[in-house]
Amino acid sequence: MASKSIYLRDIPLPQAWDRLVKALLEVGRWDRLGKEEIHLDENALGRVLAEPVWAKISSPHYHAAAMDGFAIHAVDTSGAMPTAPVTLRCGPQASYVDTGDVLPSWADAVAAIENVEPLDSAGGPAANPRRPFAIRLRGALPPWQNVRLMGEDIVATQLILPSGHTLRPVDLGAVAACGQDHLYVARKPRVAILPTGSELMPIGQPVEAGQIIEYNSLVLAAQVNGWGGQALRSPIIADDYDRIRERVVEMARDCDLVLIVAGSSAGSEDFSARVVGSLGDLLVHGVAVRPGHPVILGMLHISGPEGVGKLPVIGVPGYPVSAALTGEIFVRPLLERWLGKPPSSPYLLPATLTRKVTSPAGDDDYLRVAVGRVGEKMLAAPLSRGAGVITSLVRADGIAILPRGVQGLPAGAEVMVQLYSSPAELDRTVFAIGSHDLTLDLLSQFLAPLGRRLVSSNVGSLGGLIALRRGEAHLAGSHLLDPESGEYNLSYIRQYLPGIAVRLVALVGREQGLMVPRGNPLGIHGLEDLVRPEVTFVNRQKGAGTRVLLDYHLELLSIPPEEIKGYDQEEYTHLTVAAAVASGRADCGLGIAAAAQALDLEFISLFQERYDLVIPSRFVESELLAPLFGVLQDQGFRQAVASLPGYDVSRMGSVITDVD
Amino acid sequence: MASKSIYLRDIPLPQAWDRLVKALLEVGRWDRLGKEEIHLDENALGRVLAEPVWAKISSPHYHAAAMDGFAIHAVDTSGAMPTAPVTLRCGPQASYVDTGDVLPSWADAVAAIENVEPLDSAGGPAANPRRPFAIRLRGALPPWQNVRLMGEDIVATQLILPSGHTLRPVDLGAVAACGQDHLYVARKPRVAILPTGSELMPIGQPVEAGQIIEYNSLVLAAQVNGWGGQALRSPIIADDYDRIRERVVEMARDCDLVLIVAGSSAGSEDFSARVVGSLGDLLVHGVAVRPGHPVILGMLHISGPEGVGKLPVIGVPGYPVSAALTGEIFVRPLLERWLGKPPSSPYLLPATLTRKVTSPAGDDDYLRVAVGRVGEKMLAAPLSRGAGVITSLVRADGIAILPRGVQGLPAGAEVMVQLYSSPAELDRTVFAIGSHDLTLDLLSQFLAPLGRRLVSSNVGSLGGLIALRRGEAHLAGSHLLDPESGEYNLSYIRQYLPGIAVRLVALVGREQGLMVPRGNPLGIHGLEDLVRPEVTFVNRQKGAGTRVLLDYHLELLSIPPEEIKGYDQEEYTHLTVAAAVASGRADCGLGIAAAAQALDLEFISLFQERYDLVIPSRFVESELLAPLFGVLQDQGFRQAVASLPGYDVSRMGSVITDVD
Repeated sequence: MASKSIYLRDIPLPQAWDRLVKALLEVGRWDRLGKEEIHLDENALGRVLAEPVWAKISSPHYHAAAMDGFAIHAVDTSGAMPTAPVTLRCGPQASYVDTGDVLPSWADAVAAIENVEPLDSAGGPAANPRRPFAIRLRGALPPWQNVRLMGEDIVATQLILPSGHTLRPVDLGAVAACGQDHLYVARKPRVAILPTGSELMPIGQPVEAGQIIEYNSLVLAAQVNGWGGQALRSPIIADDYDRIRERVVEMARDCDLVLIVAGSSAGSEDFSARVVGSLGDLLVHGVAVRPGHPVILGMLHISGPEGVGKLPVIGVPGYPVSAALTGEIFVRPLLERWLGKPPSSPYLLPATLTRKVTSPAGDDDYLRVAVGRVGEKMLAAPLSRGAGVITSLVRADGIAILPRGVQGLPAGAEVMVQLYSSPAELDRTVFAIGSHDLTLDLLSQFLAPLGRRLVSSNVGSLGGLIALRRGEAHLAGSHLLDPESGEYNLSYIRQYLPGIAVRLVALVGREQGLMVPRGNPLGIHGLEDLVRPEVTFVNRQKGAGTRVLLDYHLELLSIPPEEIKGYDQEEYTHLTVAAAVASGRADCGLGIAAAAQALDLEFISLFQERYDLVIPSRFVESELLAPLFGVLQDQGFRQAVASLPGYDVSRMGSVITDVD
Repeated sequence: MASKSIYLRDIPLPQAWDRLVKALLEVGRWDRLGKEEIHLDENALGRVLAEPVWAKISSPHYHAAAMDGFAIHAVDTSGAMPTAPVTLRCGPQASYVDTGDVLPSWADAVAAIENVEPLDSAGGPAANPRRPFAIRLRGALPPWQNVRLMGEDIVATQLILPSGHTLRPVDLGAVAACGQDHLYVARKPRVAILPTGSELMPIGQPVEAGQIIEYNSLVLAAQVNGWGGQALRSPIIADDYDRIRERVVEMARDCDLVLIVAGSSAGSEDFSARVVGSLGDLLVHGVAVRPGHPVILGMLHISGPEGVGKLPVIGVPGYPVSAALTGEIFVRPLLERWLGKPPSSPYLLPATLTRKVTSPAGDDDYLRVAVGRVGEKMLAAPLSRGAGVITSLVRADGIAILPRGVQGLPAGAEVMVQLYSSPAELDRTVFAIGSHDLTLDLLSQFLAPLGRRLVSSNVGSLGGLIALRRGEAHLAGSHLLDPESGEYNLSYIRQYLPGIAVRLVALVGREQGLMVPRGNPLGIHGLEDLVRPEVTFVNRQKGAGTRVLLDYHLELLSIPPEEIKGYDQEEYTHLTVAAAVASGRADCGLGIAAAAQALDLEFISLFQERYDLVIPSRFVESELLAPLFGVLQDQGFRQAVASLPGYDVSRMGSVITDVD
């Protein structure tokens, strides 16, 4: 079997595409795959036309009455006036018609029933107004009044829908109206998806350390089906060259595209490349995009009863963000082409970066961003960059591509975002920033049915206030203790938000304490224990309310931070602190009771504190935030929060003060 | 059976809604209908979560190596420098890991394999770099370098997706990643659709005059399925009160909503209202929206084995545009509510009306518009207003609602358009205006796969030039003969587009002639025959090139227009002129051969003329129009046009002149 291997690492995306397209053109696979005839019914929804639809008949296909009334000949009414009525004899000169009825061939107008005086043979009012002897008219009608002319909607032979059009509900109606009852649509491209990797476990099975739940094939299959293809998922194949090769051959016989999904280990990817090379042409190994660069593109040569068939294969990287983006970047355009659809162009929205990002200079960098409008500004908040962080795609409203050559962008830079969300959705997005609290998760859950999406970025209390100052959020969660006054948040607001009017609203009271593993193996009971040499602590980042609280109490206790092992080890949320303790990376951390409970840790309660929302006055009365204030008064919400351990909802929603 | 009939005509939409919502609240049907447990697989795509998804496990659920390399304890590398390397013994101090492997419990970092010198026991390079005796490092590593920390993506107990969320491919991945393998999703609302009307014929059956193809139930079913419901279509039911009532009772037992689709006749609608009244409460009869006002809203009381069930019923008007809009206005929000989705808010785009519209003052008027960007202007071109014109919805990019109280708007007014199309699509729209030619249909067909949508408005040649002057189109089709010079278009361009630089491009040469019925029963052979008393002519509108051509030749022949019967009867396209002749409304009309052939008429060729495209210079070099010039050179396109009768493509695409 011929095998030319063009083995290159990380070539730019356009070049990678060109190679694949060239190979597809050579084998005549860079065009609609084929068509099939389907019956016109509701299953045609979403299919793509493979042939244009031309009208077979006109619609209406006859002159039809557009009103209930009497068909007449317009010229017979000429001269009719209120003072000089015209009388028409039913039968030869007037004939009752319902809306939709055929206009008699001698008629050219319809007198609406409410404008007619139906008469009996004696000239009095007719007993049955729809079957009078004659009618009297007190106004002239122009020809074709109240008539739906033949062809008003559709004229036979006219183009109704072009080839490549994706059928919507009204299109089905138009196709029926023009007399067609069958359609030629593009055959659905069949895409085989083969997840490989010995560390993979199917969804629903328990996983141990070192094992990974295999869901890339699920995401890819849903993408393929959503884009109009037909996905064929293979069970997981272990990292075994022969088994993978065998399975590729088997599935390739019956499909148009093969996706070999590597495990997340580098070894897996090598199997994919070797299999592709052994079964045909390895065209590309590595594309300069991030995340996702170890993409493989190739052509398989598969022998079948009708000779050797050639079809494309894509080696999909195993990290979930890379896998999903590989779907968008490579599989989607291929499917569009094969379906004969016009290439989709994303909606590009200019937005302002909320923080600095760095980017590898050699790659097109696909930055996931949450997007929302705050006041007049459209903001793009960068999400986690990790290729393994699937939630970064879940939370993303779009992708900002930092092209090759760009090494990063400062906060405040304008980026063009390819939107996933509808632009209307962005106007319903509440940008929350600042300290993290579990209440925000619940708030998000209660706001969703009210048409508000809460996007929260966890940057700590102080970070939240700074973002408010820059006009980058609708509200900030804050629990900053003023060591001098013992008051929460107020002195910080005065210092960090000078000249910005805000309302301070109580959200919850909550306990802070030390989280330790079950059984408290090191016998930790207070901050004094943190300096013991065998104790490793995990801290929160600078500016976090919990960090301020810790430093305040360390100061009171005269404990020098540098004596605490792990004081410099920083996490950004209560939950990640808890996770660090649960995983053994640290022996204890300061946080809230709910986070400890969430990860089955023991909680040593130390302090009570207030967690407030800081809301710029210009948003307080906004339509956007109105549902939020409703939720704060909602009994169901308060109960849900109160049921979290260590939470006090007694002041929830009350205005602490307005600061001008 | 209780039956309170609040029988009112045409109440405003918000009041109609309020009545229905109140009735649904009374019976506890104004909320999510119910949920069902489904397995997490690709069929979950598009389902709506009935419960939030909380993380069961973290992801990663262990500390994992993020690179291929050696797991080490970071503190062991402290002080390592290029000139002062550190050597770590494999086994106790270093252990080879692949990407994704579990980090040994004693380790807290991974030294990437490319930064390590693998050694054998003698201190030389190891034979197998992955199984060395020891490794040498020339740089210190901080803790957690190259480690994917447990919980990096997801922390157990965290909210992953809120209830009411519609599942996308990446969401399925996140649900799997957090350890869930089942989901609770909203049960699909079941919607029965009953088309009624004795004049209706099923799709695929031949229709005679007076019969109508029934496709409203198809459009409604596709809408319902597309919005997440499950449609149940009934066969057509004749206008028979008992049969309709019986069928409603039968289908209501097994569904959540009944849609009774009236025939287009007023009689049909009365049946619906009577059936609703007899089976429960008629809440609303007539809503002040256009098109669509005879909407009926009610509650059915249906006895079943478990007592009387109450469910909503909507009487859907029979005109296709009214029916589809009733789906959007009433059925869609109901389904969203029942699925627990946040209410969808349309994307509103401001656009400039291209022409004056009038509107009934008492109704919310749903104006269908084609939308496109021409230069800096976003334009909304009103489409046909007829409730029977389904193609007006097919062509619509959105709806501009003229609210009650507004009696109309002038050309140039700003309207807010609720977009159907994606905003990105609008930037790929070519607005053509002017004279109609069949070539434009073919052009549209050839442009579609190139990602360009051609929207053409037929306003005649002169109307096209005037629209260009107002900056309301990218190009105009024109065939205006200058009676003095015998030249086409140029003198008109100079007169109507002063100061606007345009390029005049030849599209086609074509024959104009008289269209008459087969067999030419009146023996018409030239314009001289138009004055014969038994001959009725159908004309084109003022400003149409064909009208100019007619007037020019009438002048040459000294035929006074007022002697031609039907000279004042105006149509806007060649095809509608042909349709007028085919239907017998006129005996002949002037037009092109292709239109005659399309409707099986005889064609008496009289003149040759040129049909050109007038393109403002500022668009000539635009990316938008580039594919158009490509198509004009395309052999397939030229052949398709040349195969139309009476067409000459020899000059197609050539530049006649540039006018500054």
